[in-house]
Amino acid sequence: MSFVPNQNKPAILSELGSPVYAALHEAKGRKGLSFEQVAKAIGRSEIYTAAIFYGQAKPEPEDLSKLAELLDVPHEGLVDALGPNFWAHRGLGSMPPKDPVIYRLYEAILVYGHPLKHLIHEKFGDGIMSAIDFNGDVERIPDPKGDRCRLTLEGKFLAYKRW
Amino acid sequence: MSFVPNQNKPAILSELGSPVYAALHEAKGRKGLSFEQVAKAIGRSEIYTAAIFYGQAKPEPEDLSKLAELLDVPHEGLVDALGPNFWAHRGLGSMPPKDPVIYRLYEAILVYGHPLKHLIHEKFGDGIMSAIDFNGDVERIPDPKGDRCRLTLEGKFLAYKRW
Amino acid sequence: MSFVPNQNKPAILSELGSPVYAALHEAKGRKGLSFEQVAKAIGRSEIYTAAIFYGQAKPEPEDLSKLAELLDVPHEGLVDALGPNFWAHRGLGSMPPKDPVIYRLYEAILVYGHPLKHLIHEKFGDGIMSAIDFNGDVERIPDPKGDRCRLTLEGKFLAYKRW
Amino acid sequence: MSFVPNQNKPAILSELGSPVYAALHEAKGRKGLSFEQVAKAIGRSEIYTAAIFYGQAKPEPEDLSKLAELLDVPHEGLVDALGPNFWAHRGLGSMPPKDPVIYRLYEAILVYGHPLKHLIHEKFGDGIMSAIDFNGDVERIPDPKGDRCRLTLEGKFLAYKRW
Amino acid sequence: MSFVPNQNKPAILSELGSPVYAALHEAKGRKGLSFEQVAKAIGRSEIYTAAIFYGQAKPEPEDLSKLAELLDVPHEGLVDALGPNFWAHRGLGSMPPKDPVIYRLYEAILVYGHPLKHLIHEKFGDGIMSAIDFNGDVERIPDPKGDRCRLTLEGKFLAYKRW
Amino acid sequence: MSFVPNQNKPAILSELGSPVYAALHEAKGRKGLSFEQVAKAIGRSEIYTAAIFYGQAKPEPEDLSKLAELLDVPHEGLVDALGPNFWAHRGLGSMPPKDPVIYRLYEAILVYGHPLKHLIHEKFGDGIMSAIDFNGDVERIPDPKGDRCRLTLEGKFLAYKRW
Amino acid sequence: MSFVPNQNKPAILSELGSPVYAALHEAKGRKGLSFEQVAKAIGRSEIYTAAIFYGQAKPEPEDLSKLAELLDVPHEGLVDALGPNFWAHRGLGSMPPKDPVIYRLYEAILVYGHPLKHLIHEKFGDGIMSAIDFNGDVERIPDPKGDRCRLTLEGKFLAYKRW
Amino acid sequence: MSFVPNQNKPAILSELGSPVYAALHEAKGRKGLSFEQVAKAIGRSEIYTAAIFYGQAKPEPEDLSKLAELLDVPHEGLVDALGPNFWAHRGLGSMPPKDPVIYRLYEAILVYGHPLKHLIHEKFGDGIMSAIDFNGDVERIPDPKGDRCRLTLEGKFLAYKRW
Amino acid sequence: MSFVPNQNKPAILSELGSPVYAALHEAKGRKGLSFEQVAKAIGRSEIYTAAIFYGQAKPEPEDLSKLAELLDVPHEGLVDALGPNFWAHRGLGSMPPKDPVIYRLYEAILVYGHPLKHLIHEKFGDGIMSAIDFNGDVERIPDPKGDRCRLTLEGKFLAYKRW
Amino acid sequence: MSFVPNQNKPAILSELGSPVYAALHEAKGRKGLSFEQVAKAIGRSEIYTAAIFYGQAKPEPEDLSKLAELLDVPHEGLVDALGPNFWAHRGLGSMPPKDPVIYRLYEAILVYGHPLKHLIHEKFGDGIMSAIDFNGDVERIPDPKGDRCRLTLEGKFLAYKRW
Repeated sequence: MSFVPNQNKPAILSELGSPVYAALHEAKGRKGLSFEQVAKAIGRSEIYTAAIFYGQAKPEPEDLSKLAELLDVPHEGLVDALGPNFWAHRGLGSMPPKDPVIYRLYEAILVYGHPLKHLIHEKFGDGIMSAIDFNGDVERIPDPKGDRCRLTLEGKFLAYKRW
Repeated sequence: MSFVPNQNKPAILSELGSPVYAALHEAKGRKGLSFEQVAKAIGRSEIYTAAIFYGQAKPEPEDLSKLAELLDVPHEGLVDALGPNFWAHRGLGSMPPKDPVIYRLYEAILVYGHPLKHLIHEKFGDGIMSAIDFNGDVERIPDPKGDRCRLTLEGKFLAYKRW
Repeated sequence: MSFVPNQNKPAILSELGSPVYAALHEAKGRKGLSFEQVAKAIGRSEIYTAAIFYGQAKPEPEDLSKLAELLDVPHEGLVDALGPNFWAHRGLGSMPPKDPVIYRLYEAILVYGHPLKHLIHEKFGDGIMSAIDFNGDVERIPDPKGDRCRLTLEGKFLAYKRW
Repeated sequence: MSFVPNQNKPAILSELGSPVYAALHEAKGRKGLSFEQVAKAIGRSEIYTAAIFYGQAKPEPEDLSKLAELLDVPHEGLVDALGPNFWAHRGLGSMPPKDPVIYRLYEAILVYGHPLKHLIHEKFGDGIMSAIDFNGDVERIPDPKGDRCRLTLEGKFLAYKRW
Repeated sequence: MSFVPNQNKPAILSELGSPVYAALHEAKGRKGLSFEQVAKAIGRSEIYTAAIFYGQAKPEPEDLSKLAELLDVPHEGLVDALGPNFWAHRGLGSMPPKDPVIYRLYEAILVYGHPLKHLIHEKFGDGIMSAIDFNGDVERIPDPKGDRCRLTLEGKFLAYKRW
Repeated sequence: MSFVPNQNKPAILSELGSPVYAALHEAKGRKGLSFEQVAKAIGRSEIYTAAIFYGQAKPEPEDLSKLAELLDVPHEGLVDALGPNFWAHRGLGSMPPKDPVIYRLYEAILVYGHPLKHLIHEKFGDGIMSAIDFNGDVERIPDPKGDRCRLTLEGKFLAYKRW
Repeated sequence: MSFVPNQNKPAILSELGSPVYAALHEAKGRKGLSFEQVAKAIGRSEIYTAAIFYGQAKPEPEDLSKLAELLDVPHEGLVDALGPNFWAHRGLGSMPPKDPVIYRLYEAILVYGHPLKHLIHEKFGDGIMSAIDFNGDVERIPDPKGDRCRLTLEGKFLAYKRW
Repeated sequence: MSFVPNQNKPAILSELGSPVYAALHEAKGRKGLSFEQVAKAIGRSEIYTAAIFYGQAKPEPEDLSKLAELLDVPHEGLVDALGPNFWAHRGLGSMPPKDPVIYRLYEAILVYGHPLKHLIHEKFGDGIMSAIDFNGDVERIPDPKGDRCRLTLEGKFLAYKRW
Repeated sequence: MSFVPNQNKPAILSELGSPVYAALHEAKGRKGLSFEQVAKAIGRSEIYTAAIFYGQAKPEPEDLSKLAELLDVPHEGLVDALGPNFWAHRGLGSMPPKDPVIYRLYEAILVYGHPLKHLIHEKFGDGIMSAIDFNGDVERIPDPKGDRCRLTLEGKFLAYKRW
Repeated sequence: MSFVPNQNKPAILSELGSPVYAALHEAKGRKGLSFEQVAKAIGRSEIYTAAIFYGQAKPEPEDLSKLAELLDVPHEGLVDALGPNFWAHRGLGSMPPKDPVIYRLYEAILVYGHPLKHLIHEKFGDGIMSAIDFNGDVERIPDPKGDRCRLTLEGKFLAYKRW
């Protein structure tokens, strides 16, 4: 069961090939739900939930059932597109990013990348912060001088194996 | 007063032109200090302190005095190189990063960049998280399944001006 | 409600995905209006108004109502495409620009970028001119030796936070 | 007469080949002068003056005399390096810019480039704003919500010749 | 009025978005006319005429009338596509060029670019040869050792403004 | 016999490896000669002469003798560097060009490349204008509205062989 | 007369725009002919014949007649697509090549390019081997240790003109 | 035993790191030998011999002895640089090549790469022409219309293994 | 016989042009088969079998018969698309890879590429490990600290021919 | 204690900045040891040992002691360069690789990358093979048809965390 391609979909979604993502976004818009609400309803974090809508995560079967019910999209269609035979091709958009929101994250790496690497080594030793065994959060922190956006990225430290 | 170029400096520092950075790293190594200790001694955060050592921040005059004293490097040399006439050219290393530590941060943007953009918009509206009015932190979170590295990036939300 | 893709649309608009932009341009052309006239009618600046037609700004609900009325395009279609669920993916065209008009702006950065950076630092200190809390203007300045184009770009100065 | 290469010069100057630029910057720093002061002393605008220090403009003979006197650098050396046999190779730094100050200007083109092109055409017709018969200014505009940086770029309009 | 996309159009034309270019080429082919003949009929130079067929020039209203009549294509369609609301997005094809004909021109710049720059400076001073107030010609020069192709490129000299 | 590297040489010459080019430029400057004068003295065209100074042509033995005499540079040094064992590695500078003088030539190809290809085919058939059996000229054409720079590029037409 | 686009065509052909190439390949496949057989039938070499099928050569009128007859494809369609108004846009595929067969040729240039240049100069002087007045051949050379593929590339030597 | 870096060495050799290559070229020049003569003297083909001089082949011990004797360069130095501990890092120069001699070979792949791939498959099946078990030759073929350069590239056919 | 394009196909398959790959994946999914099962059924290795589904291998006629039977897809369609006239254009996806699974393999080359090259030379001499006469395997190795993925890549050593 | 830069070092080592790598390679060469022998002597695997020599691994203190003793290089120098203050910047060489040995590994990813991704997912689920908790081996497998090179890459499977 295939979704019908949607003329109004944001151009970035067309990189993902399947029309399922535009269908999910459209249904969420029609229901007037935020990702915060969708996340609560399906019992996932906000980032993980949004990642499903951008093809960057592989949902579990129960995620699909809950999404189908919450958003009134055909369950069979979700299973065909995002079910057991779906393996996410992660990585979306070209680099460097053109959009200023995403560019600012990229700039943080350009500016603080080497200092962060050095700190990670001093605190943990020779290894990396995993981007797989990984979770994160976005919060709005009220501040009288202007609210702040706090982004938490957390990954398991993985030591380089010596052999 | 110029520092003498150092043969053993990590290649990344040579992108910064001046030998002051290798001199700072070497002095810190000679003193056996971590960035955590240097940061505490000069009253700055760890990331900001490390950023000074990688040419990614403009230190205040008192930062230079404290660094000169702490590390036993000539104050005059630091002022010549990083004082009032120094304006940091931020951005270090080529992209995409080759080093796996920095690449994992880059990958987080590749994978979660569009979901994060969408969440920032839903929580704040049309605008960005600043990378200038910005601070951050790296922490080691003990975990029985393997300690985790928690990276906090926080920036003021800036709304797009309409005019 | 979806707009019908238009054969004659300039190729650059197809980067934006949705056919709404070609529909806006076509309606403006059919009405014989300049951006100066559209801007006056909706109470926005000329650059901001043109930015809406190129997917580079998020219009307010009242902007959409005024545009729908002014241009005789279906209001519902504008709301579907550019309303509350729309978050602009800014950044249009590839770099370096091929079009000579845009290239001259790019060249100004190639030639005067480092001098401008140095002047901004001397006048304001360590920080940037915001491209978000930002406005601009284009004027035609009569000149007997040939009229001149004056482009004003103005952004709030943002100081680098020290922490 | 050749200037001696300087260890502390910012890395960007090494793209320009000759050590004359680092010598000028160092002399200006030693004298404690801002570009505003140098510009006033030699009777040029601030941007044009800074452009000379970054190899992006060809100074006139009288500019060199005044610079030599003002900054106490050998006149003969300036004439050898920047005199009648010098033709500036304009264009400095790699693109996209990594430094956030310069990147924000670049981003203004990414976001407003096509709207600006359209407005220039509607106001002037088929042609460009010259980047050669060109001048500009940077001003600090006081503002209770945070001072603003106003950048004015002005160029003669050049119509495409039809033949 | 829209032209119908044509299956046989050369791939390069599809970069231009609108099907009007393929329609013009096809009509010219059907009439068996060379650009020399079309140019004579509309009173323009050969290069300028060919530039219209590749979306690289903005024709005047009378050019469109003459083309419509000469080539038997609907005048209304030409006005819709290339009339007052059309602003050429110049720059066609990717660089470096793959096609050997265009590559040889590119190679001439790779090899003779710096010598030409130096000669232009010695003959005119600090400035450029305009590519906007610009005209050109292609001629076939008979030669017993093999006819030669003479390309003339002529632009107004524009001096760098000092300010 | 090797030339001593020169501190003041324009950065572009360092791409060529050998210090002979800076030595030639410096000697020409010391003698106060233009390329027009050097060309006349050695009996070559201006472009070809300038090409020798930028490593883009292989001079004949008599060219070296005349240059050595005219410019008072050691003949032996010229023969070592540019004599029978020298084979020019043509192609200088990176693309797209950053310098505005050279960029305008590049832009002429971006804009008129496909029209020129089409005209060459209509006038000559399937083949190219050679960039090897090639000559050129730069002239200053007086014009009351501003002198013009006329660049002539002429190459033998080479037909594609069918086999 | 236009050919109908074919679903099964190799992706590389879609770079060429027109469906005529897929139609030629399909007809050749349907007839069970090798390029060796097609070449013999139309009196051209194998490489030249294959080049026609990949849009890399401009066939003569008699080539089209013979192909139409041999392959049972409509002659009128071939003339529309590849006849007098067709000028090949040569250059196919992106570089570096991904396909291992083509990559090995590319690698031969990476490894032997500079040695070959030096040998060509020693044997012929200052000039190039033409890629236009050019022919080639592919042969299977039986060899007990494994048959070898012999590729012959032959071009007229063109001496750099001195002027 | 290290060779002294040579000021006059062609810039391409500096990519290879060691000064041994410039020393070999210089000695060959001093002796007035062509690669044809060197090749004959050491009993290797011309291309292979030239490849040694450009760091693209690993010479055998006897090659080094013969080169040292023929060219009067210290044998110990050759063994240190190119002996048993040397493993060639093949691949020289950037792509696409700027030099016209090498570009023409590159262009042959751009134009004839896909036709050649197809012919190799039809003559040999699914596999490649090796660039390792590979040899080649350059010949000058006299021709009354201008001598031709014949380049033969021959490699063992390697079939894709199925497993 | 052509397969019908499938809306849900992973975007990566669209690089391959023909809809046959999506049809194979869909049929395999419908049958609920893993590549391990398909491989066993057609008597090929797992990697080779998966390579057929991604257009990276040329199947033998018996492979197509077995696949058609196993997966219930029309044999004629497979033969049209992947039979005797099909020559795989190998190389899929852009580099560097964005997907983290493939990136980790790429990173292994970035980090261990030069060490591996050195070891291959010490164990085998001057030559390469073939990627053509090549086979491989992926295994799951149980491990109490977390199962491991063992990837074996094996290729015939090919010595550089000296000639 | 700094090592003296070595003229003969392979160019790739200069990417690593410090002269310690050339010193290690030279000492190993002087001792006539293979990596197999060095690895055995220090009790590490061959790949890991070679990775130390190419700056791609952080040796343990005892590795440095053993290397200093085995190779007769000053221990203090090794500790200064590769001791507790050294954090490897992994990633060496540019991509795509030019050297054919390393290119073949890269090609294996181009050709088998997507099939391997699919197999990893079917065998392990949604996750990656780690390149950090990773080990490998290179073996020479005797084979009457030509010895084979077997490369084993083994990494812990890391499942994507759901949160």
